[in-house]
Amino acid sequence: MKAPIHLAILGATGAVGVEVLKTLEKRNFPVRKLTLLASERSAGKSMKFKGESLKVLQVKSSSFEGVDIAIFSAGATRSREFAPHAQKAGAVVVDNSSAFRMDPSVPLVVPEVNGADVANHHGIIANPNCSAAIMVVPLWPLHQRAGIRRIVVSTYQAASGAGARAMAELESQARDVLAGKPAKKEVFPHQIAFNVFSHNTKVAENGYNEEENKVIEETRKMFHDPRLAICPTCIRVPIFRAHSESVVIETERKLSADEARKILSSAPGVRVVDDRAANYFPMPIEASGQDEVFVGRIREDPSTPNGLAMFISGDQLLKGAALNAVQIAEILIKSHGS
Amino acid sequence: MKAPIHLAILGATGAVGVEVLKTLEKRNFPVRKLTLLASERSAGKSMKFKGESLKVLQVKSSSFEGVDIAIFSAGATRSREFAPHAQKAGAVVVDNSSAFRMDPSVPLVVPEVNGADVANHHGIIANPNCSAAIMVVPLWPLHQRAGIRRIVVSTYQAASGAGARAMAELESQARDVLAGKPAKKEVFPHQIAFNVFSHNTKVAENGYNEEENKVIEETRKMFHDPRLAICPTCIRVPIFRAHSESVVIETERKLSADEARKILSSAPGVRVVDDRAANYFPMPIEASGQDEVFVGRIREDPSTPNGLAMFISGDQLLKGAALNAVQIAEILIKSHGS
Repeated sequence: MKAPIHLAILGATGAVGVEVLKTLEKRNFPVRKLTLLASERSAGKSMKFKGESLKVLQVKSSSFEGVDIAIFSAGATRSREFAPHAQKAGAVVVDNSSAFRMDPSVPLVVPEVNGADVANHHGIIANPNCSAAIMVVPLWPLHQRAGIRRIVVSTYQAASGAGARAMAELESQARDVLAGKPAKKEVFPHQIAFNVFSHNTKVAENGYNEEENKVIEETRKMFHDPRLAICPTCIRVPIFRAHSESVVIETERKLSADEARKILSSAPGVRVVDDRAANYFPMPIEASGQDEVFVGRIREDPSTPNGLAMFISGDQLLKGAALNAVQIAEILIKSHGS
Repeated sequence: MKAPIHLAILGATGAVGVEVLKTLEKRNFPVRKLTLLASERSAGKSMKFKGESLKVLQVKSSSFEGVDIAIFSAGATRSREFAPHAQKAGAVVVDNSSAFRMDPSVPLVVPEVNGADVANHHGIIANPNCSAAIMVVPLWPLHQRAGIRRIVVSTYQAASGAGARAMAELESQARDVLAGKPAKKEVFPHQIAFNVFSHNTKVAENGYNEEENKVIEETRKMFHDPRLAICPTCIRVPIFRAHSESVVIETERKLSADEARKILSSAPGVRVVDDRAANYFPMPIEASGQDEVFVGRIREDPSTPNGLAMFISGDQLLKGAALNAVQIAEILIKSHGS
């Protein structure tokens, strides 16, 4: 694919779409033409890109003529509807939704982990679930060096994972609770302000909710290890946009905390924040707006021979969505470039 | 000890002290005389008990004459200072602080777990750390039936664990952040509103902070199992008063989720909240003000042969402090009663 390219963004006005635009600009992504697409509800709005005002168009089956790469961030239903049209027009789709992630013909990619898988695409590349995306960035380099056999992870997930309306609901509920008024619930089934609750996705027969089953299956797919043992617990917390995760791993080869810290210090996409003396570790307010996944509390787990524990924070809208999609688009340009 | 008794509360005006008073009243604790004690700063205040107004006295070495039981909730320094005076006066101290918990001559008790240990006291009985207290209530009945070998726990701890001033800080920071102002930090080292951070206690040589080391050591002491394997991660979340915990256990004997749910349904001090179809599980806003520890998300852990996962919420000020202390006092009265 020859840069600069014609890029389309479906779901441009959503929480992720807004961050895709900012990320393209920040990384000086080689755009020749930018087409902003959205549903009827948001079409007609204007958005800024490199100082220019661009109109958001209503997405149609014909929207992808001449498009090189289309980043989709409008939910699984719209991805299923419009991906065939984009493919037919010759565009490569980088899809943020869950629609195609587990399709064996679709690569599921976090560039720091399995960027090479991009080459195997047939017109669609999937962006993983945000909790999985953030987790695999620091775990992959440890896996390569010591062989991860089991992961026990408990998440502290921000409202942003449910979109801009969910972030607004956290804010308005917090105002109501502080004013002594009841919290109005519209997006989430339970109060999010000053509360935590189990992730609001359907619980499957095995007792794990959709978010947790995504963490299990998508991590296995990206690691090319269909039997990797994972026990996830996904919890929403009253945070605006970065996800945090308490991660305990068991490895084939013993990893000391010092060795793990050294590996992570030079790992791509990772920032080690691990100052024990100052009690200073990864926090979602500091990871918000940052490209790197922060990792700290790196320590040996005394409860099992080859255990290692850590705490991570990563921006759900960036590495968990927009940034990862743009990174995949960058690989597409590089690998197919003349 | 012959009921009704003369009870003293040291730290009566604190977050826990206030709940001790309410709990005594709610449980119709047999009080003949109630002495409310506090430091110079809070002495002179008035508090209500059963409709009567009681003056808070400044604690002195002579404050414990004629006292049968003294509940201490004024921090480890005051406990160390005044426990010898209370003992000398013949009072039994039920101590909420960490001062004596790991002293081999002091029973550390959660009545639902090891109430019988109260009988071994020599004038002091310790109340455990709140995270440990809440965790052991549902884990003990599972341990009795299936033998817990390992616990991996990640906490979602409320501001209340750091006292009434910390709860006020969460509230004032939330107001400031919503108003676009910077959050003022006085009690916690990091912003608590719309943020999570690693528990604000000193990190030891082993990489675990004081709170985490308490969870390890105190659980082992209460379970009478000095080698029980535990990997804790203690995290503060912007919640006012109930702690939640994501708990994954490994047992000697396989426990199915159904069997665990059945055991927990009839366990003392436990309320099973586990409705998968309705996506309704334990939440701190619902556990606040409740005596029971809520447990749900009970499911088998597919990542290890005998694994079981669950999510719990319990009121940090009640089962994690005030209620547990009053329950210990009730055992003292019963077991030594005429």
